Amino acid sequence: MSLEERKIVEAQPQPQPINVLEYEELARPRVQEAHWDFYAGGSDDEVTLRANRTAFERIRLRPRVLVDVSTIDTGTSALGTPVSMPILVAPTAQHGLAHTEAEIATARAAGKAGTIMIASTSSTCSLEEIAEAARGVGGPLWFQLYIFPTLDVGERLVRRAEAAGYKAIVLTVDLPRLGNRERDRRSGFVISFEGNFVSEQKIGSRTRIPLTWDTLAWLRSITPLPILLKGILTAEDALLAVEHGVDGIVVSNHGGRQLDGALAGIEALPEVVEAVSGRCEVYMDGGIRRGTDVLKALALGARAVLVGRPILWGLAVNGEAGVFHILEILRSELELAMVLSGRPSIASIDRSLVKIM
Amino acid sequence: MSLEERKIVEAQPQPQPINVLEYEELARPRVQEAHWDFYAGGSDDEVTLRANRTAFERIRLRPRVLVDVSTIDTGTSALGTPVSMPILVAPTAQHGLAHTEAEIATARAAGKAGTIMIASTSSTCSLEEIAEAARGVGGPLWFQLYIFPTLDVGERLVRRAEAAGYKAIVLTVDLPRLGNRERDRRSGFVISFEGNFVSEQKIGSRTRIPLTWDTLAWLRSITPLPILLKGILTAEDALLAVEHGVDGIVVSNHGGRQLDGALAGIEALPEVVEAVSGRCEVYMDGGIRRGTDVLKALALGARAVLVGRPILWGLAVNGEAGVFHILEILRSELELAMVLSGRPSIASIDRSLVKIM
Amino acid sequence: MSLEERKIVEAQPQPQPINVLEYEELARPRVQEAHWDFYAGGSDDEVTLRANRTAFERIRLRPRVLVDVSTIDTGTSALGTPVSMPILVAPTAQHGLAHTEAEIATARAAGKAGTIMIASTSSTCSLEEIAEAARGVGGPLWFQLYIFPTLDVGERLVRRAEAAGYKAIVLTVDLPRLGNRERDRRSGFVISFEGNFVSEQKIGSRTRIPLTWDTLAWLRSITPLPILLKGILTAEDALLAVEHGVDGIVVSNHGGRQLDGALAGIEALPEVVEAVSGRCEVYMDGGIRRGTDVLKALALGARAVLVGRPILWGLAVNGEAGVFHILEILRSELELAMVLSGRPSIASIDRSLVKIM
Amino acid sequence: MSLEERKIVEAQPQPQPINVLEYEELARPRVQEAHWDFYAGGSDDEVTLRANRTAFERIRLRPRVLVDVSTIDTGTSALGTPVSMPILVAPTAQHGLAHTEAEIATARAAGKAGTIMIASTSSTCSLEEIAEAARGVGGPLWFQLYIFPTLDVGERLVRRAEAAGYKAIVLTVDLPRLGNRERDRRSGFVISFEGNFVSEQKIGSRTRIPLTWDTLAWLRSITPLPILLKGILTAEDALLAVEHGVDGIVVSNHGGRQLDGALAGIEALPEVVEAVSGRCEVYMDGGIRRGTDVLKALALGARAVLVGRPILWGLAVNGEAGVFHILEILRSELELAMVLSGRPSIASIDRSLVKIM
Repeated sequence: MSLEERKIVEAQPQPQPINVLEYEELARPRVQEAHWDFYAGGSDDEVTLRANRTAFERIRLRPRVLVDVSTIDTGTSALGTPVSMPILVAPTAQHGLAHTEAEIATARAAGKAGTIMIASTSSTCSLEEIAEAARGVGGPLWFQLYIFPTLDVGERLVRRAEAAGYKAIVLTVDLPRLGNRERDRRSGFVISFEGNFVSEQKIGSRTRIPLTWDTLAWLRSITPLPILLKGILTAEDALLAVEHGVDGIVVSNHGGRQLDGALAGIEALPEVVEAVSGRCEVYMDGGIRRGTDVLKALALGARAVLVGRPILWGLAVNGEAGVFHILEILRSELELAMVLSGRPSIASIDRSLVKIM
Repeated sequence: MSLEERKIVEAQPQPQPINVLEYEELARPRVQEAHWDFYAGGSDDEVTLRANRTAFERIRLRPRVLVDVSTIDTGTSALGTPVSMPILVAPTAQHGLAHTEAEIATARAAGKAGTIMIASTSSTCSLEEIAEAARGVGGPLWFQLYIFPTLDVGERLVRRAEAAGYKAIVLTVDLPRLGNRERDRRSGFVISFEGNFVSEQKIGSRTRIPLTWDTLAWLRSITPLPILLKGILTAEDALLAVEHGVDGIVVSNHGGRQLDGALAGIEALPEVVEAVSGRCEVYMDGGIRRGTDVLKALALGARAVLVGRPILWGLAVNGEAGVFHILEILRSELELAMVLSGRPSIASIDRSLVKIM
Repeated sequence: MSLEERKIVEAQPQPQPINVLEYEELARPRVQEAHWDFYAGGSDDEVTLRANRTAFERIRLRPRVLVDVSTIDTGTSALGTPVSMPILVAPTAQHGLAHTEAEIATARAAGKAGTIMIASTSSTCSLEEIAEAARGVGGPLWFQLYIFPTLDVGERLVRRAEAAGYKAIVLTVDLPRLGNRERDRRSGFVISFEGNFVSEQKIGSRTRIPLTWDTLAWLRSITPLPILLKGILTAEDALLAVEHGVDGIVVSNHGGRQLDGALAGIEALPEVVEAVSGRCEVYMDGGIRRGTDVLKALALGARAVLVGRPILWGLAVNGEAGVFHILEILRSELELAMVLSGRPSIASIDRSLVKIM
Repeated sequence: MSLEERKIVEAQPQPQPINVLEYEELARPRVQEAHWDFYAGGSDDEVTLRANRTAFERIRLRPRVLVDVSTIDTGTSALGTPVSMPILVAPTAQHGLAHTEAEIATARAAGKAGTIMIASTSSTCSLEEIAEAARGVGGPLWFQLYIFPTLDVGERLVRRAEAAGYKAIVLTVDLPRLGNRERDRRSGFVISFEGNFVSEQKIGSRTRIPLTWDTLAWLRSITPLPILLKGILTAEDALLAVEHGVDGIVVSNHGGRQLDGALAGIEALPEVVEAVSGRCEVYMDGGIRRGTDVLKALALGARAVLVGRPILWGLAVNGEAGVFHILEILRSELELAMVLSGRPSIASIDRSLVKIM
């Protein structure tokens, strides 16, 4: 589709899907095949991609009854920032492939929904453009950071994020190299980093500096912003993260796009939560499609979840309104799940709510 | 179908299915699609709906041999009321969608089969009409209670149930709000509460009073009838129920129609039975389709089971005779299962009969 | 098919299947549909019928190497009678439905294969005809006994079996009443007992005397023949059997035709073997289709296995030669499995050969 | 295909598959059906063949992050011989069925890839021809040995292997007789042993000497070469192997081609590794299709894995270049898996990397 054609498609009246999975079906024909595959695909045989969903089915809910659920409060905070619900917008690349308004639309929708958008280093728009869009609706932002090809470039990104008002840095630690995403290899799709790097030299995805715990110390030294590590799947690394003074951990397998065969996020969550033992906040992503998925993650100790692909489906179907609707569907499903499980507040969601089969 | 058309269909000679699942197939074309979906559907992705069936397949029977089974007695009692078998008619809404005679037919069939019908607050007929039908065949009745929109309305229902001769109140506790039943959202089906509320103001499904343990205390204070709580799935709530002096618990996930992902009834039964430890009667529903399912539930500690959808299938296929046949099929299958497992009486069915795989 | 048509079909040249499952496919079109369903079917939803097969897949073999397997001896004994392999012909009804020569053919094949045929009370031929056929080839026989409608009839059967040279009585204990075999109910098939009861009054399948441990004591008192109980699935009944002095137990769920949901034979075998602790011989049946299945059963403590449906497939495809070939296939597969697992003799097959997953 | 036709096919330009499974699909139409079945098939119902793959799916990876993975070294050694990666070429029969250059092509590819080829006794080319090809590219060779029909023949093979420069003898111990490979029985395919036995008398596959631990002692006595046993699946045999002074063990079920129902290689690996406790090297094969499979095997204690069928697929598709590409794909996938799991060296791959579900 040309840009003009897309604008025509996007201007047409939209259906009103009633759940996230219906958005997926509607989004597919609206996105170029190679771009769809980039969004949808995992690495190798996509074992972990599928596990991210099936792992939720092995967790049963143990609802409580006769609790006063006439008032439900889905509100919580993330690193001290109040959010209307424990559902954040995960950093995903290149929203421009889904919609011409790209991250501008996403940022506005997230802000209006009262939650945090985590902007990706590899966004279509620059971080400053995203910040401006979010500012218009009072939306808090975190910045997802890839450090490459040099620390200098990383530092400049952090400085720009600070200047633009981002409230935290989410350092992705599970991408020392790109996973083997065969769909992209077949389609020839190559990700662009132009959004944030117009003024930088061309960035090659293979020329990275080694990312180690020392890098984290360096990052800690150059910014007062809270730092989260995204991509931790083990108790061992969670302990190291705590020892290195991180403010948060995102338990994640990068949407099944990096190491195939890795634990599903929801499978790894309990050991990370146990290891951390309250010393930093723990988030998770991977496979969230229903309000009950959020409930399960919170019951297993997550402070909030990050939602990735569904945001892109909403964006593709209906731009800002689509993203907003996706977030409202999830919020509404979570609220109902809290009603039906007798947990009227986020704080009341505890481990006894789930049984792993 | 118009009422006239339906009466013509219903007057035609009926096939004689040999099991409950055949009734399901026969019933489907006789019920309007939206109504069928209302009966058949669960919430969200219907994970719990399916789990209600598959959970039975993980339970193996350990039959005993060389026991004298020349006389089998399926009779038992439920809260002191003798019943011909440990199979009760679950409360389900709007029997008029399945057959013009609605709950009148169901009540007669249950009474003739010698078991209890639990009439639903949201029945097509009024509770008094159902009581009159049951009286004609000596059928005992329990009344399933939703309390809304105010306690006053709930109290009037209880008074009417007392006056009409209902022997127990089954308070549904797992519907503080309606589950996300997407089939109904797509078809536009909205349940009617006219049967019992002709004289009441219009009832909106969203304007409920909070239902809590205090409500139970209030209910206890206004009626001498035995009270059961329907919709408990955890040991914790079972203990609270016992402490609040209930007479019975129905372990249930509301036919997979409320919280998707919740435990199957048969999965939750053992922990509830263990927690209650004989201090009140424990019933269960969800997924009963065969006599051996009843046997498994009893072996795991249920006093009796409730059967929901199969009753509606029988009703749709052949009215009162269809419901009666469904109950006779299940009784006959249970009796045979007792013969083949060497358990000639309900009292002889014990935990050693099952092995959970 | 008329008898003449069948004889023509049976006279045609036969293919040479290479395994038991190929025989099943070849047999199907050669048997009338109602008769096929009678052979193939289980009770209710056929859950146990399927479990009889799938349970074997959860058992892994742990083969030993560098054992001298240049000489393999599949020979063993069953209640003191030498047999060429630990594979016996299970009692199955009405071989005449598969082939005009009926049990005559089966008995000759079993005898030539050097193993025991357990003749069924409900055979097409009389027990004396079967004995005569077996005598011609030196084949040992056991007699499977149903006692009904009276002890007198049972005693006459035992006396006839003694007179005809049967070496043991296999009392079936899992059929106090016929299971719910829906295929037969749909086809209208009713089993005949004419083979052994030409001179008796008509036998109704519902008029049975109660079969209890007392019946076993009575049987013990009237015959010096060894007695086996067929249809035990629990440690509790195995202990009782030992206390009542039985000579053998056949762990069996009657081919999935009685209590649906019951344990698979191979699942129940370990607890029976442990309970019996060598005080009587333990056999099993249900789902044996490969030599490795036999190996697994022996590793879990069975003295030998009984093979039912495959015998009928062989019979339908090629009469005596087909049954013989079935037995030779299984023997040959067992022998190869013994070679490949480093167990050159039946005595060398022990519990360490299997791992239950 | 005639030899001429095949040469024409082989000369055509080749596609560049991106993973091993794509090679499988490309190879299938290039190999005669009976030969394909010979390569692809397992024994009996191919339960173990499938288990070799599915067992890997039950193992989850626990990747570590923030490790310096800028330099990855896949190099290791096998019995002291340096190899570029822990992936060896498994002994498989008759490469000539896949490509006219047969083992010559395989040996060159393995050598260029810097790894060991284990040449099969039943190769198309003679062991001397293979050695010559390997010598040209500096490729180390091991020799897989079948001893039959007499020790003399076996000894001559060992002498020839020593003379040709083979560095180890891999004695196959799980083939005292050929497994029941039904695909071959249906196609009529019979393996040829001409490659190494032109000057020997015709070798019948059934006339074997007994292979026992004594044979191992004899082999030990006649050659100074290191000896590995291939085909061990139990701790018991692993202990015996250590006591008999072997240098290595290959945990293997012969590609699912011998005892059906046997443990998958990856299932048996942990108990063998634990039993051996470092006293000899442990290898495994069976089902390796991805770099992450190699990683899992190494995490569970394997020194290296052997790859069988994929080599033949590469050979069929593109001769030497195809085999080389298969090895490079696996190396590259392993390297990426090491990057993404935070294990920059083979030595850093430990048990904590996996979780068995």
